[in-house]
Amino acid sequence: MLFPELKQRRDKIRILMAQQGIDAALIACNVNLIYTYGRVVSGYLYLPLNDFARLFVKRPNTIEGEHVMSIRKPEQLPDLIKECGLPLPQKLMLEGDELSFREYNRLAACFPETEVVSCGSSLIRQARATKTEMEIEFFRRSGVAHAKAYEQIPSVYRPGMTDLQLSIEIERLMRLEGCLGIFRVFGQSMEIFMGSLLAGDNAATPSPYDFALGGAGLDPSLPGGPNGTLIQPGQSFMVDMGGNFYGYMCDMSRVYSIGKLSEQAYAAHQTCLEIQEAVSSMAKPGVICEDLYNKAIEMVTKAGFADYFMGVGQKAKFIGHGIGLEINEAPVIAPRIWQELEPGMVFALEPKIVLPGVGPLGIENSWVVTAEGLEKLTTAPEEIIEL
Amino acid sequence: MLFPELKQRRDKIRILMAQQGIDAALIACNVNLIYTYGRVVSGYLYLPLNDFARLFVKRPNTIEGEHVMSIRKPEQLPDLIKECGLPLPQKLMLEGDELSFREYNRLAACFPETEVVSCGSSLIRQARATKTEMEIEFFRRSGVAHAKAYEQIPSVYRPGMTDLQLSIEIERLMRLEGCLGIFRVFGQSMEIFMGSLLAGDNAATPSPYDFALGGAGLDPSLPGGPNGTLIQPGQSFMVDMGGNFYGYMCDMSRVYSIGKLSEQAYAAHQTCLEIQEAVSSMAKPGVICEDLYNKAIEMVTKAGFADYFMGVGQKAKFIGHGIGLEINEAPVIAPRIWQELEPGMVFALEPKIVLPGVGPLGIENSWVVTAEGLEKLTTAPEEIIEL
Repeated sequence: MLFPELKQRRDKIRILMAQQGIDAALIACNVNLIYTYGRVVSGYLYLPLNDFARLFVKRPNTIEGEHVMSIRKPEQLPDLIKECGLPLPQKLMLEGDELSFREYNRLAACFPETEVVSCGSSLIRQARATKTEMEIEFFRRSGVAHAKAYEQIPSVYRPGMTDLQLSIEIERLMRLEGCLGIFRVFGQSMEIFMGSLLAGDNAATPSPYDFALGGAGLDPSLPGGPNGTLIQPGQSFMVDMGGNFYGYMCDMSRVYSIGKLSEQAYAAHQTCLEIQEAVSSMAKPGVICEDLYNKAIEMVTKAGFADYFMGVGQKAKFIGHGIGLEINEAPVIAPRIWQELEPGMVFALEPKIVLPGVGPLGIENSWVVTAEGLEKLTTAPEEIIEL
Repeated sequence: MLFPELKQRRDKIRILMAQQGIDAALIACNVNLIYTYGRVVSGYLYLPLNDFARLFVKRPNTIEGEHVMSIRKPEQLPDLIKECGLPLPQKLMLEGDELSFREYNRLAACFPETEVVSCGSSLIRQARATKTEMEIEFFRRSGVAHAKAYEQIPSVYRPGMTDLQLSIEIERLMRLEGCLGIFRVFGQSMEIFMGSLLAGDNAATPSPYDFALGGAGLDPSLPGGPNGTLIQPGQSFMVDMGGNFYGYMCDMSRVYSIGKLSEQAYAAHQTCLEIQEAVSSMAKPGVICEDLYNKAIEMVTKAGFADYFMGVGQKAKFIGHGIGLEINEAPVIAPRIWQELEPGMVFALEPKIVLPGVGPLGIENSWVVTAEGLEKLTTAPEEIIEL
């Protein structure tokens, strides 16, 4: 990745560091290394407030450069920093929400004279919440590839398929369009393989995970997603795959049916499309996330579908979430989130309804906040697609 | 999962807790919840040394039972423990290698009168290192499914394919045989999507990850595995997919060629098979891991392939690794690992050679340690399979 891009990202972090009197960050976690160094390495990016970043790398042993030094273990860090001609930090930031307790303490112990603060994860996540032009371009390309894979879904459906069998064919389509497959999540509140296909009543099964919808899954070791449900006439299914084509988690859901559904189902789907239209028209820089959520609740209540909105017995308490290198970034479109939208934020908006006896309905698209409003990244037909 | 199985696992942990004067464990991480509760939940398993385990669950909201209570946030834990009629712990164990620094501190702060120790991860990993009969049975079934998927590889190969295109077809075969897909790792030293197919010289590309072999990958955000290499006559490729069929990470590699390879390639492959034979014959309860590693190094040196063993420019410093709910469990078959093999341990043994201009050679199988020696879990032809 070109240096100006990396410098822009690092400077976004530095501005936040300066506000908190932090004079250096030690970055050790994979997604933050992708963000600040452009690729995964095993090692550490040392980011001083007022000097060039230095990479201390264990693996691969093929990385070389002016500001790159080899390292075997973190205890070498202070000496290596001094070798670069840099002072040891006064106030050092570590990734407190991502490093394990023990790894954090091991790193902190390398700097006995330094005040070590744990806000690194939240501060870098704040920097990552507004994307650069290059990141937005990765998302635009991802949206095109994601839509191209979904377009082919009707061609791989065969009558008599289970949710799992169809999911496997869609996973293959996604991979053939370039999806890297890996599904990155912040924290341990979510685990999934590539994404989910939820058919019929399985969409109402609560899961331990913090996704919009659950599903029983195939095994208690991964209780989410398809469970072997036969895809049947009169029922709907929803495809919600993670679109990680360039490291960025594009998010998109579409609904399919075998033959016609009940009138109520089309009404529920239409309600979600109207919520999407209203919320996306309202969203622009300065708008408060909670206000968008409340708008959705107001509309779904008026339409009479509140009991089935965002799940049935167990409901998701959000209608959208920031996306980036991970599927769950800032901002969250949820109650009590008083954050204002800013240009460059990218988020998924996913008003969804689960109708008992029918299945999941609604929509999910990825959007970027521009100066004027929102730009849709995942353009494809949004009606229920009849197979 | 049946209670006797869960009790057996919990008691394995309790024995280790008692040795360290720990009177309770608070288990919050997904793999340890699978181990001790039989499934993923969002919540906490509280494991007292001398009383029944209690589940404090956030999600899903459908779990009920005698020893199950609902919880919203960890700060409720002390009150809930008292409600169960249990005393607060004197010495409480948390998962210090898996909980983030901040989450650990939040949990520890809930117990201000308690001595909180961070050895939970390492102690539970020690318990998990020797598998129960049921876990071994999951592995046996996984081995059969894994081999069944690999058997079909020749039928999906088409001339002119890239490593990625063939990998996608093999991923599909694995999924159709029941593979859950998700690839669970302890720590952040490894990331991968399902597994890898390494063809030709790409197998020699060093990666940041701690796998036996690397590969350049498709994108700097995931620099490992296939990179778009055309599969060519005279070169080899190796398939190494994660066989997670029941939550357990079965591991298996096989080598394929298009037409014949050089004589040196067959000799290198044969050397790996002989190392596998020697090491697996030598392995039994009481044998030291390092001794197995040294045996392999001795043999590969004698055969003249030491420079190409376990990578070329950057070499993996192990020939095998424990497997279980995660791909990297104890024991590691590596230098300075003086751990003795014990009955019930399950590990992957993977002597591999990368020949420049040819590609990866060698073998990987999963094995369980029995009272007498080893039992192979992944039975399938081991010669280079010519396509």
